[in-house]
Amino acid sequence: MLITGGAGFVGSNLALRLLAAGADVTVVDSLIPEYGGNLFNLAPAGSAVRLNVSDVRDPFSLQQLVAGQDFLFNLAGQNSHLDAMEDPATDLDINCRAQLSILEACRRVNPEVRVVFASTRQIYGRPRYLPVDEAHPLHPVDVNGIHKLAGEAYHLLYARVYGLRACSLRLTNTIGPRMRIKDARQTFVGSWIRALLEGRPIEVWGGRQLRDLNDVEDVVDAFLLAAQSPAAIGQAYNLGADPPISLQALAEMMIELHGRGEYRIREFPENRARIDIGDYHGSFAAIRAELGWTPRHSLRETLQRTLGYFAANLAHYV
Amino acid sequence: MLITGGAGFVGSNLALRLLAAGADVTVVDSLIPEYGGNLFNLAPAGSAVRLNVSDVRDPFSLQQLVAGQDFLFNLAGQNSHLDAMEDPATDLDINCRAQLSILEACRRVNPEVRVVFASTRQIYGRPRYLPVDEAHPLHPVDVNGIHKLAGEAYHLLYARVYGLRACSLRLTNTIGPRMRIKDARQTFVGSWIRALLEGRPIEVWGGRQLRDLNDVEDVVDAFLLAAQSPAAIGQAYNLGADPPISLQALAEMMIELHGRGEYRIREFPENRARIDIGDYHGSFAAIRAELGWTPRHSLRETLQRTLGYFAANLAHYV
Repeated sequence: MLITGGAGFVGSNLALRLLAAGADVTVVDSLIPEYGGNLFNLAPAGSAVRLNVSDVRDPFSLQQLVAGQDFLFNLAGQNSHLDAMEDPATDLDINCRAQLSILEACRRVNPEVRVVFASTRQIYGRPRYLPVDEAHPLHPVDVNGIHKLAGEAYHLLYARVYGLRACSLRLTNTIGPRMRIKDARQTFVGSWIRALLEGRPIEVWGGRQLRDLNDVEDVVDAFLLAAQSPAAIGQAYNLGADPPISLQALAEMMIELHGRGEYRIREFPENRARIDIGDYHGSFAAIRAELGWTPRHSLRETLQRTLGYFAANLAHYV
Repeated sequence: MLITGGAGFVGSNLALRLLAAGADVTVVDSLIPEYGGNLFNLAPAGSAVRLNVSDVRDPFSLQQLVAGQDFLFNLAGQNSHLDAMEDPATDLDINCRAQLSILEACRRVNPEVRVVFASTRQIYGRPRYLPVDEAHPLHPVDVNGIHKLAGEAYHLLYARVYGLRACSLRLTNTIGPRMRIKDARQTFVGSWIRALLEGRPIEVWGGRQLRDLNDVEDVVDAFLLAAQSPAAIGQAYNLGADPPISLQALAEMMIELHGRGEYRIREFPENRARIDIGDYHGSFAAIRAELGWTPRHSLRETLQRTLGYFAANLAHYV
């Protein structure tokens, strides 16, 4: 199986799980410093994992790598909302152009491959009702969301039109070992973990907004279920967690688990306020009913394990 | 004012109307043979129109051309559903990358410009109810529709986030003088007109599907209203016509107006059936209520004028 973005946060956790189960895993990652890829994430695998450093924007290497795979976990992407607003053309190349060339490669050289695409709750934009289900209108509020929406739409289109066995998972905030904590490019939680471990106050923008958070191990479960279920083909499913939590309550829980620390409530910076979505809480009723997925890890347990991981490995992530 | 795609069907009719009203008009068109641009479309303007042959994929020329304009009518696009499925990367460049660079140019060199984007009913995909209003889910069924949706979303996003005075019109099938009739790349009606004038039978795929058709002069009215109304900024409006007509009834009306001809009902070719949307009928209640737009031309009158135009000018269009 092939994992694009496989040195990143979710990709590396997925790779390690698959390797532990005896799978033959190839990881593609560009290792661009601003993105999620980090070789240390794959260190536990040693030489068991085949690492191919290349960029999904390179259509030629992708065609070679897709050939002969049973599964493609398609997780490579540019995920920073602010970077996408600053440089929309690069975001377009990674989140649209590269996705098209990956799908064209599948269609031409490996039409039987099972594909699971990592989409995002961001494609809904500002929620009109909660919890957000898959029928919610798709009105992304930033360039990154527009491109992620196109990326998912390609996958569902290639399933419908060409019979490609592809599906999509719409991830909400995901946390766990191996996440990017250097900055807030991947999630705000990453930068909070770093602040806490470095003894700086957590900066909470706003504070009352609700979010749901998934443990990366639960997300890995969802990828494995989606890859194997015939019912998933052509579908897009929300992940999600119950209950949602306010940012302020989350900061307090993290400080309590860490045993020390403080947070400061701050006004939204102007460039973030313009693309903020307010409260978010996703319904995962569809994937629970159709694929039997449900989150197994509590938020407290996930935060504790995550803080422990980064306390032990901080130097590799900052 | 600047009109991208201004040698094309809607663009040239808009340019001629504006020139007649005394406007200072620059037309940008790539004149790529497979697209809608045709120099003959602008012949009535003589030297009154400033023609700049360049491709909207060229970010440098666009930046020069956008500077100093009061209005930008943004109509350049790749519109063939089948070409987009065959070559998705080219469609992405024209309908997404170029749109981003046009909007970036506006934001940087001309943030006060009024922008009207030519979107399409295609972004709705297969209708879930009729008539389709602007709240209908956006689920395009082909690559071209995915990219048009992104193109529109950029415009609305730049309005919301950067205060750009942009809006979008979702065109349905548009007919009139200066449309592309060489083939079915722009509309099926174009290829029907050509067949009729060349004495060949009209090929009607299916036949019972409903469509609504707008006269290009009515569409030009909508662009002018949208460009001038403060209420339109940040909005996307359907155009449309009442009542819709079946393809078979349309073929019969065209033959009657032409005074001769025949049609043949054919099965859908497989590559079209996969991306067909069934019946379509759009609601234009929003633009009627907010901008006062309503179609003024009957379908019969439009068809008669259009057939007369192409009978007189056939050699310039085939």
